[in-house]
Amino acid sequence: MIKIYGKNCVYAAIMANSDISVVYLSEDVVKSDKNILDILKKRVYKYVILPKKKLDIEFPYQNQGYGAHRENYMILDESYLDNLPKERGRVLILDGIQDPHNFGAILRSVDAFGYDLVILPKNRSVSVNETVAHVSTGAIEYTKIMYVNSLNNIVEKLKKQGYWICGTDAKGTVLSKDIDKSLNLAVIIGSEGFGMSKTLVNASDFLIKIPMKGHVNSLNASVSSGIVLHDLMANDN
Amino acid sequence: MIKIYGKNCVYAAIMANSDISVVYLSEDVVKSDKNILDILKKRVYKYVILPKKKLDIEFPYQNQGYGAHRENYMILDESYLDNLPKERGRVLILDGIQDPHNFGAILRSVDAFGYDLVILPKNRSVSVNETVAHVSTGAIEYTKIMYVNSLNNIVEKLKKQGYWICGTDAKGTVLSKDIDKSLNLAVIIGSEGFGMSKTLVNASDFLIKIPMKGHVNSLNASVSSGIVLHDLMANDN
Repeated sequence: MIKIYGKNCVYAAIMANSDISVVYLSEDVVKSDKNILDILKKRVYKYVILPKKKLDIEFPYQNQGYGAHRENYMILDESYLDNLPKERGRVLILDGIQDPHNFGAILRSVDAFGYDLVILPKNRSVSVNETVAHVSTGAIEYTKIMYVNSLNNIVEKLKKQGYWICGTDAKGTVLSKDIDKSLNLAVIIGSEGFGMSKTLVNASDFLIKIPMKGHVNSLNASVSSGIVLHDLMANDN
Repeated sequence: MIKIYGKNCVYAAIMANSDISVVYLSEDVVKSDKNILDILKKRVYKYVILPKKKLDIEFPYQNQGYGAHRENYMILDESYLDNLPKERGRVLILDGIQDPHNFGAILRSVDAFGYDLVILPKNRSVSVNETVAHVSTGAIEYTKIMYVNSLNNIVEKLKKQGYWICGTDAKGTVLSKDIDKSLNLAVIIGSEGFGMSKTLVNASDFLIKIPMKGHVNSLNASVSSGIVLHDLMANDN
């Protein structure tokens, strides 16, 4: 079970008909949000109304009067690769993202730019936790997430399925605006501290650079993901 | 005084010759980082070497063996507007950003994409604190930050100085790639919860939209900033 909290996050879980055991609302929210009880009744969700102080004990951070006990998110296994689009597919591979704020923000971009799947390695990645869900402001309900044993194997499989691998690296030479948007694309974003693994750099069909002119010369991982996902969003058929 | 911590953050402050009263290093760092003591001696910074456990008491989060007591960052006042470039200038206005993670990540983009100034309203904004400094991974040392009483007044002043105001809003109609990069531009990013104020929307010369196709239809504020700052980076003269 994961505790989710905050208006956007709880609403998104309800509207996506997610597996919620109980919704918790503050007394104030029930007065100010005229729709919430009707929605919960129509969708047959259990709910509990509490004084804000009691809600704050169960959901101590930024709950805005909304909380819920949600069953764990569905994590896909490799067999899901068969379901990927055959045309204009979009996959994001996160090579070792550790920070839950970054992962949550990335999930918003994944949803916003219509990406089909996010893939992470099992042993060097943040897990799907309460902070990730909260920072995603509900986008997590609409994103497909897969944890795998080996990114190298997955990249080889994606290539066989007709996906072009777009690494991102300071040594990159390709601008994302110059990549053909009608292709199937798998974007790789490196970890916060160390970037992409050398093996994945070598396995990339395109190595994308983001032009920079500053002193520090590196971006937050969720920001660089957002820029590349935005630039490579699939154009319409 | 602000406590800064983490290798990138402390190194950036040293290399920028910032006002640091003491640098703190763990015994392990002094063994593994062969350059640090030479650099500190050359630049005449006081330093203290501590066992990691003692360093962790003074700098309890993610210090990587590096910490420092840094004097407060210089915050500019409105008179600095006179120093803005007359050509291809770039200003970022943050209309009510509250989250220190977002502000820190935004400062990295501001540095990376060569923006000249960041402006925030005094009474609805995150302040420059330890978390902001840390998340900026040192970019804060190279960014000019101004807090002002009224964004509306500032926008009018910027217009008189030949800056074009680029708001960002879900109701926007302009794609950032279609804006002339040779202009002086001031980009406005709205707050995490409420977006831009109506007055600033109305004051904008261009209202930029970021095309999206998902369910949640909003991005993390540091991500949307990154996308627009990247798209509007000044081209070379």
